[in-house]
Amino acid sequence: MTRADAQRNRQRLLAAAREVFDEQGTGAPLDEIAHRAGIGNATLYRHFANRRELALAVYAEEVDALCARGAALLDADSPAEALFTWLHDFLTNLAARRELAVLDADQPGADLSGRYARWHKAIHRTASDLLDRARAAAAVHPDVEAADLLRLTSAIALSDADPHRLLRLARHGITPAPHDR
Amino acid sequence: MTRADAQRNRQRLLAAAREVFDEQGTGAPLDEIAHRAGIGNATLYRHFANRRELALAVYAEEVDALCARGAALLDADSPAEALFTWLHDFLTNLAARRELAVLDADQPGADLSGRYARWHKAIHRTASDLLDRARAAAAVHPDVEAADLLRLTSAIALSDADPHRLLRLARHGITPAPHDR
Repeated sequence: MTRADAQRNRQRLLAAAREVFDEQGTGAPLDEIAHRAGIGNATLYRHFANRRELALAVYAEEVDALCARGAALLDADSPAEALFTWLHDFLTNLAARRELAVLDADQPGADLSGRYARWHKAIHRTASDLLDRARAAAAVHPDVEAADLLRLTSAIALSDADPHRLLRLARHGITPAPHDR
Repeated sequence: MTRADAQRNRQRLLAAAREVFDEQGTGAPLDEIAHRAGIGNATLYRHFANRRELALAVYAEEVDALCARGAALLDADSPAEALFTWLHDFLTNLAARRELAVLDADQPGADLSGRYARWHKAIHRTASDLLDRARAAAAVHPDVEAADLLRLTSAIALSDADPHRLLRLARHGITPAPHDR
């Protein structure tokens, strides 16, 4: 098998895994992922040693895609819309992948914390860039920090409520500004 | 022992339990609670069959106190301040008692769900009363519901962030109203 074949198999497995995880969660049978990718189980395990590695590879691609989307949104007309479009995307991704946190808690590893740290840094930089632009346009309150937005979004994503409704509520505030501030 | 003595012992145990749980969490040694109350272990177990019963009795009193505080706040001058003072109290309580959720998940019981349903109803009624008054004063956006406030506050309480900062952020909104709405 050439390197190009191997790369193609890896991409097919990741695409199938994303589909199956979306439908059934990260506990879905790996057999089904291999089947849907049209690839043998042995090949799956050659690429991904276990479920966690596969799930983390899916997540790594999603983090890259989120950061790329954030960078593209820096060219959008409305800095506020760009920031919240991205936060809603981030929220959707977190809500869909909340099981990953459980998966990790079960099997901690040294490399894992390094990966998480890189992802966290990349996500934080993306949020900061969008926030800086919104702040320069006076489209957010000046004392709001990127860490606030990421923590609030994470908290909302992990709850059982309708997360997008709660994020919209936080965007506009519970009280009508500015007389109550 | 008279009924008044028994009632006094129960109150001393609950007061001691609240202190010790605040310091050490709901996993604190029951011996220490009995010791601090100046009451024997056997008496503690006569009042509370196990750790969960004791923790739930503490929580039941806290829910009553929260609801009483909410009712008192209906007389406060500013409906918005009253609502948010209560939400911050609720947040403090939830953040302090987040272990209770874990305790319950470990040992589910039929009576428990009944108790939770009663507490939920009492808390929801308190929040609704405060919200109605704030809404009548146009101090909150008209489409905000009590369930939104309770869910958002719960989500924030269970996160690892500074919960009071995030609740203030949600109160006033991330964006300056109203041009962005």
